[in-house]
Amino acid sequence: MRRVRRGRFISFEGGEGTGKSTQLRLLAERLRAQGLVVETTREPGGSPGAEELRRLLLNGAADRWSPLAEALLMNAARTDHLERTIRPALARGDWVVCDRFADSTRAYQGAAGGVNDAFLRALERQVTEGAKPDLTLVLDAPAALGLERAAARAGGEARFESKGLAFHEALRAAFRRIAAEESGRCVLIDAAAPVEAVAAQVEEAVRARLLQPA
Amino acid sequence: MRRVRRGRFISFEGGEGTGKSTQLRLLAERLRAQGLVVETTREPGGSPGAEELRRLLLNGAADRWSPLAEALLMNAARTDHLERTIRPALARGDWVVCDRFADSTRAYQGAAGGVNDAFLRALERQVTEGAKPDLTLVLDAPAALGLERAAARAGGEARFESKGLAFHEALRAAFRRIAAEESGRCVLIDAAAPVEAVAAQVEEAVRARLLQPA
Repeated sequence: MRRVRRGRFISFEGGEGTGKSTQLRLLAERLRAQGLVVETTREPGGSPGAEELRRLLLNGAADRWSPLAEALLMNAARTDHLERTIRPALARGDWVVCDRFADSTRAYQGAAGGVNDAFLRALERQVTEGAKPDLTLVLDAPAALGLERAAARAGGEARFESKGLAFHEALRAAFRRIAAEESGRCVLIDAAAPVEAVAAQVEEAVRARLLQPA
Repeated sequence: MRRVRRGRFISFEGGEGTGKSTQLRLLAERLRAQGLVVETTREPGGSPGAEELRRLLLNGAADRWSPLAEALLMNAARTDHLERTIRPALARGDWVVCDRFADSTRAYQGAAGGVNDAFLRALERQVTEGAKPDLTLVLDAPAALGLERAAARAGGEARFESKGLAFHEALRAAFRRIAAEESGRCVLIDAAAPVEAVAAQVEEAVRARLLQPA
C-alpha cells in the first residue's frame, strides 16, 4: 500500500515591497527541482471568485472600503480560495506556496486598520477551520524601503501602498509581533538584504522546518 | 431652537417573489405624500461598493459562492451601505426604506444555507453596531407561489432563485420564525393577497408602529 505524502502549506508574509513574489517564485523553483509538485497561489485571490474580489480590494481610492469591509472581503476571498484551491491541492499531496494568508488580515485590517482583534480571530477561525500554514516566512524590511521598492514596480493594485508611511510602519510592527508570538510556525527573514541573500535565508528556513528527516 | 426629527428605518423582508420591491415603492410614495423625505435603498447594494458586490452575489451559478462566502460578502456590503447611505440619511432626519437587511442573511445564509447561527450573530453585531430597523415588514407567501412570480420577472439576478424549492421553504420558515421571535420590530404580512390588500396591511403596520402620536 502506497503511503500518500502529505502536502505542505507555506505562506509568505510582509509589507509592501518586501520581495514576497520574487522569493515565492525562487522557492517554488527550488522545491520543484527536488521533484515536489508545487502550487503557487496568492491572497487576496487564488480562485476565480477570490480574484474578482482582489480586483475590488487592491484598486481605487485608499478609502474605497473601510477596514471592516476589507476584513470581510478578505475573509470571503479566503474561504473561496481554501475551498477551491488550497484544500484540494493539499489533499492531492501537493505543496502550496501562497503569497499572503491570514496574517496579512491581522496586520492590515487589525493592527494597522483598527478592526477589533477578537472579532478578527473569530472570523479567522470560522473561515480557516484550523487550516494554518506549516511554515510562514515573514519578510521584514523598513517600511520606507519597502514603499520605495513598491513604487518602482509597474502600475496597478496600489491601493494599500497609498495609505501612507504610518500605516506601513504599523504593518511592519504587526508582522514582527506575529513572527515573535508564533515562532513555531513563523520565521522572520531579513528582507532588506540582496535578493540572493534573502533566498538563502528562505531556503535554510524551509530545509530546517520542513525538509529535515522525520 | 428647531427640534430635529429623527429619521426612521424600515426594512422589507421575505423570500423571492413576495412583492417586496412593489410594496416598498408604494410605501415610499405614501410616506412622501405625507411630506416625509424618504430614501429608498436595497441590499445587497445601496452604495457604489455594495452594488459591485451585489453583481457578484446575485448572478452566476448557484454554487458560485459557498454560504459562508455569501455571508461575509453580504456583511461587507452591509457595512459599506450603512456607513455611506443609511447612517447619513438617518442623521439628516430622512426616512430610510430598505429592500432586505440583516434578517435576509440570517434566513438565506443561516437557516437555509447552514452557516453557524452564533457566528452570524457575531458578524451582525460587529457590522450593524446595534443599528436595527425601527420596523421590519416580513412579506410571507408560499415558496412555490413566490418562485412562480419571480420566474415571471425579466431576467438577471436569479442566482438565489435557482437554489430549488427546499431552500425556499426553509427561507420562508426562517422569516416566519424571525417575525415571531422579534415581534416588537417585525410585522408578518400576508403577501399571497392581491397587491392592494398587501399595501393596505403595510400601511396599517406603519401607521400603528411608527405614525401614532407619541
